[in-house]
Amino acid sequence: MRAAVLRELGGPDKLVIEDYPRPTTADGEVVVRLGAAALNRRDLYITYGQYPDVVLPSVMGSDGAGHIEELPAGYSGARAVGEAVVIHPSLGWGSDPRVQARDFRTLGVPKDGTFAEYVALPAENLFPMPAHLSHAEAAALPLAGVTAYRALVSRGELRAGETVLVTGTGGGVASVGIQIATALGARVFVTSTRDENLELARSLGAVGGVNTTDPKWAARLKELTPRVDLVVDSVGGALLPQLLRALRAGGRLVTLGASAGPVPELVMPYVFLKQIDIRGTTMGNADDFQGLLDLVLGHGIRPHIGARLPLERAADALRMMESNSATGKIVLEP
Amino acid sequence: MRAAVLRELGGPDKLVIEDYPRPTTADGEVVVRLGAAALNRRDLYITYGQYPDVVLPSVMGSDGAGHIEELPAGYSGARAVGEAVVIHPSLGWGSDPRVQARDFRTLGVPKDGTFAEYVALPAENLFPMPAHLSHAEAAALPLAGVTAYRALVSRGELRAGETVLVTGTGGGVASVGIQIATALGARVFVTSTRDENLELARSLGAVGGVNTTDPKWAARLKELTPRVDLVVDSVGGALLPQLLRALRAGGRLVTLGASAGPVPELVMPYVFLKQIDIRGTTMGNADDFQGLLDLVLGHGIRPHIGARLPLERAADALRMMESNSATGKIVLEP
Repeated sequence: MRAAVLRELGGPDKLVIEDYPRPTTADGEVVVRLGAAALNRRDLYITYGQYPDVVLPSVMGSDGAGHIEELPAGYSGARAVGEAVVIHPSLGWGSDPRVQARDFRTLGVPKDGTFAEYVALPAENLFPMPAHLSHAEAAALPLAGVTAYRALVSRGELRAGETVLVTGTGGGVASVGIQIATALGARVFVTSTRDENLELARSLGAVGGVNTTDPKWAARLKELTPRVDLVVDSVGGALLPQLLRALRAGGRLVTLGASAGPVPELVMPYVFLKQIDIRGTTMGNADDFQGLLDLVLGHGIRPHIGARLPLERAADALRMMESNSATGKIVLEP
Repeated sequence: MRAAVLRELGGPDKLVIEDYPRPTTADGEVVVRLGAAALNRRDLYITYGQYPDVVLPSVMGSDGAGHIEELPAGYSGARAVGEAVVIHPSLGWGSDPRVQARDFRTLGVPKDGTFAEYVALPAENLFPMPAHLSHAEAAALPLAGVTAYRALVSRGELRAGETVLVTGTGGGVASVGIQIATALGARVFVTSTRDENLELARSLGAVGGVNTTDPKWAARLKELTPRVDLVVDSVGGALLPQLLRALRAGGRLVTLGASAGPVPELVMPYVFLKQIDIRGTTMGNADDFQGLLDLVLGHGIRPHIGARLPLERAADALRMMESNSATGKIVLEP
């Protein structure tokens, strides 16, 4: 089969399109013929060796959707050959819903991923594809969607009528997060350092946003919404203490990234006198993924796609991501 | 009546023992004849003006126990004249169990407190005194006890069989916290910068402790207990990031103080990849106080008293606290 294979580290240029052995059901896994795959920042970082446990060569890609091609011998579960499925990319989460097990991995390096014609996966990672979505839209959903759902719902406990602030909007998690939070009946505000990201957020349902390069952004946010119940933060750095001040007493800040690096100083009385929770989250388990799909189905949510390219142009797609030249998910089609 | 009154700021020397108007039931409050009062760090800080909203002159003191002297006209609740009561010092918590209201105050400056022969309080702040406690022991319980109970139980969700690390042991909150956690069936470990505090903690039920002035304290703690489910931290500063590393994945850190000042740098991936919760807490509401009393009664917990002095020596008592010359609560008796 054709596949985008990482044979050495050094950036998107090292991704090679080649003939690669088609995966089989030998390990009790289900073989899926992919209709579409989608990129994540994780893929870019992997090409530079910025993730542990990279095994070369590997087929890249965490996100995908397609049809079931072949079931393993003796399979007696709910999945059927020919069924349209979307892939949950969390492997080996384990039995504790609060946290992933030590050997948890995300699909795509070291386990061969979705930038290919076929992928093999445990049956438990395959879910019926929401009927209103195209393969491209379904492929754009999983990793960002399950991360956003867990951050907002499972960890953030977001309720209808609350106000949530999503920081660093523009990426896949923030975009689908805005759609999820809006569907749940929350009012969404966003921050970014780029006005075009604020525009995109508004088109996805955000009520308003502030550009954090404006030194008065916190005052402007307070004008827009005097109350913030929940912050979902992927920025960290010097922004985080300011987010704690923006949060209402008794509020929650869910952290899932640190694009601005370490927090330079944290004054703890802001946390304990206001009885704030700072809750860490990463990825999501099967319950989170099912919750995401229920919400996507129930509210007709469609992930925002920024670009569609043929699989053969996987390296170009990674370079597009690196240069931020697409807003929205970048999809690859075999 | 005799009372310890703060007439100007400037430290314990400014506390004056004098004749002061006896409080009345005029505002619908209950008058309690105090059997004992107890000191908290808060009292010391107030004498230096390190708290907002200090009104002078005021009777100091948050903690106390005694007998009901007089009920307000038309009172029809459960309290009775002559009943032994312990005082819950949280005033105006409000309707949200997650966080105190804006006008929340702690008894004792600006509202006249317990370093006196009598104090007047809303009936809802008076609870039957556990029968196995002396007035001195009951007076030593409230502020530290409700803070520790809320940190461990309401916010920390401590369960039997878990391991909890209490940092900066030696003070009232840590001491009663060790007793509460042990009663709940948890294994308690402690940290301090002073070996005598580790000894005191062991005498109260802690399994072991480490002195954080030892550069290898984290490794020693790991030898004592490879798993920490919950940290209750009053230290903050540079210790906090090390506590996050000691905590198990999916664990909770409850913060209630920052004796070491701001956290100099916080690397957020420690929080989000391990899906840790950092939960702020302060004081406690009536449900926390009732939970504390149930536990104290059910397990025969007796607060540790370090020194007992007559009310007339209130300034000496504050100086003892300032010089750390007593381990355990300092009690004043009229």
